[in-house]
Amino acid sequence: MTKDPVTIVEVGLRDGLQILDRVVPTADKLRWLEAEHRAGVRRFEAASFVPPRLLPQMVDAAEVVAGARALPGIVVHTLAPNLKGAMAALAAGSDVIVLPLSASEAHSRANIRKTREESVEELARVCRARDEGGYKTRIDAGISTAFGCTIQGAVPEDEVVRLCESCLEAGADRVALADTVGYANPAQVRRLYSRVKDIAGDRLQGAHFHDTRGLGLANCLAVLDLGIREFDASLGGLGGCPHAPGASGNVATEDLVFMLESMGFDTGIDLDALIEAQRLLATLLPGQTLHGKIAAAGLPKHFDRSHFHRSPVHA
Amino acid sequence: MTKDPVTIVEVGLRDGLQILDRVVPTADKLRWLEAEHRAGVRRFEAASFVPPRLLPQMVDAAEVVAGARALPGIVVHTLAPNLKGAMAALAAGSDVIVLPLSASEAHSRANIRKTREESVEELARVCRARDEGGYKTRIDAGISTAFGCTIQGAVPEDEVVRLCESCLEAGADRVALADTVGYANPAQVRRLYSRVKDIAGDRLQGAHFHDTRGLGLANCLAVLDLGIREFDASLGGLGGCPHAPGASGNVATEDLVFMLESMGFDTGIDLDALIEAQRLLATLLPGQTLHGKIAAAGLPKHFDRSHFHRSPVHA
Repeated sequence: MTKDPVTIVEVGLRDGLQILDRVVPTADKLRWLEAEHRAGVRRFEAASFVPPRLLPQMVDAAEVVAGARALPGIVVHTLAPNLKGAMAALAAGSDVIVLPLSASEAHSRANIRKTREESVEELARVCRARDEGGYKTRIDAGISTAFGCTIQGAVPEDEVVRLCESCLEAGADRVALADTVGYANPAQVRRLYSRVKDIAGDRLQGAHFHDTRGLGLANCLAVLDLGIREFDASLGGLGGCPHAPGASGNVATEDLVFMLESMGFDTGIDLDALIEAQRLLATLLPGQTLHGKIAAAGLPKHFDRSHFHRSPVHA
Repeated sequence: MTKDPVTIVEVGLRDGLQILDRVVPTADKLRWLEAEHRAGVRRFEAASFVPPRLLPQMVDAAEVVAGARALPGIVVHTLAPNLKGAMAALAAGSDVIVLPLSASEAHSRANIRKTREESVEELARVCRARDEGGYKTRIDAGISTAFGCTIQGAVPEDEVVRLCESCLEAGADRVALADTVGYANPAQVRRLYSRVKDIAGDRLQGAHFHDTRGLGLANCLAVLDLGIREFDASLGGLGGCPHAPGASGNVATEDLVFMLESMGFDTGIDLDALIEAQRLLATLLPGQTLHGKIAAAGLPKHFDRSHFHRSPVHA
């Protein structure tokens, strides 16, 4: 029986590292990336093209992208908050650029320093620049704080739907919803994804859930049921948002892969090798709290490893 | 709009404490119980009627049940592994007695020291003793290792279904499935609950998930979708199984209540007061690692507290 494929986007190198005080050396970032690549991970949100004075952790973005692109079969996502960042991300050879837009007006001003309308205009400029430059790069609108915001609280669902619509009109190839601060619950997730799917169809794909309040994997399950097949996750649950106090931790890649593979989906990822990568990450970030459970608990005794067929370590 | 009610059974006083090396004083158990009762929790699996030499933590079972019964509106569940324990549990005034039966033959022999057939015979004896004694106590068959076992690995689903059938024939009022070791995944959970529901109907109710591998709440969501409305949980995620190495932690009551209330279900529980109870538990068990996320992260800014209406603290 052919298994239903699910794509994992490892975002730890971007979302995980950006919240840390320490600056991780480029060589260590590439060791992390290579370890997950060995496990079969093929999509990485590898860096953020932002001013180094704002995020010194991302000063080597172009180098990391170049290092990633040297690996076979890889698809490199990067984040760019504006046109200037997107131009650098295009030049560096990003396969996918994620432009973050806040659904919360308050978060938008605090985090991106733009109104939502200004963000959509910037997105349109990025899409035009991509086209005029002859790039084939996919442009995704990443709708952050789609499920609530630590500054303004509730974010009306109508506003999220309208923002998604505006992003698609502005030329985005995809929209993805992000629970930046870990406020989402499965009922809300199903409601909002269904509404956005009605207007976006297959152009709604990604799901980016934080596990701040423990509901990360339940929220993933909720959108899996709706046909979403691409998920952001961060090795060891590293992550957060510097402008969202208390927000910490994307869903842990290894726990999400465990859930998906156990359920019979095909992530193409060798979970034993992924847990090895998590252990490497722990040594690269001494003293750093990692989240997630499967790396410590171990796989169930009868776990079916015949899933592990695509990864180079078993080739 | 009337909200769909969901019942939480706090099992920490039994499943949580039984794995600890320390013996918690009766007065502390009752302080814990009272704190959750103040928050609106009404069902407690308060103790286990087992030989004190096996579980010294449960030596005060009858006292704890008596203390619990003094609180208004409470429903006291207890666990009894055999007829002798069940007689003591009946005499102590249990409203519900859970008799654990292992779906895994290997786990059954290691944990209960009986074959599955012998367990079913013991269940029949317990039901007869209840009837002959004129008790109105509900007898639940708790099917442990229903989703796999650390000793034998996979547990065939056909065997789980057959065991449930035998339990109902033996006179159990209810069957409940337990993922004793944290092996379950949402697809398996949906499959097995659907099959057992086909034979048990409304006599299948409880769900007992451990969060050992991070899928506890996702599994709760999976059975919630199937109409299950009664869940075991443990404050602070305390718990495990002494005969299942690596198993630790039921789903945390406070995280489960957060998920359910956020989704619009009515647990009757005041989440602020429940988090207070979690903080009390932390002081009662100094040095003990507690799990769960919401107590540390705090409720979302816009969390709707109008749910908190049934609890005495708001009465």
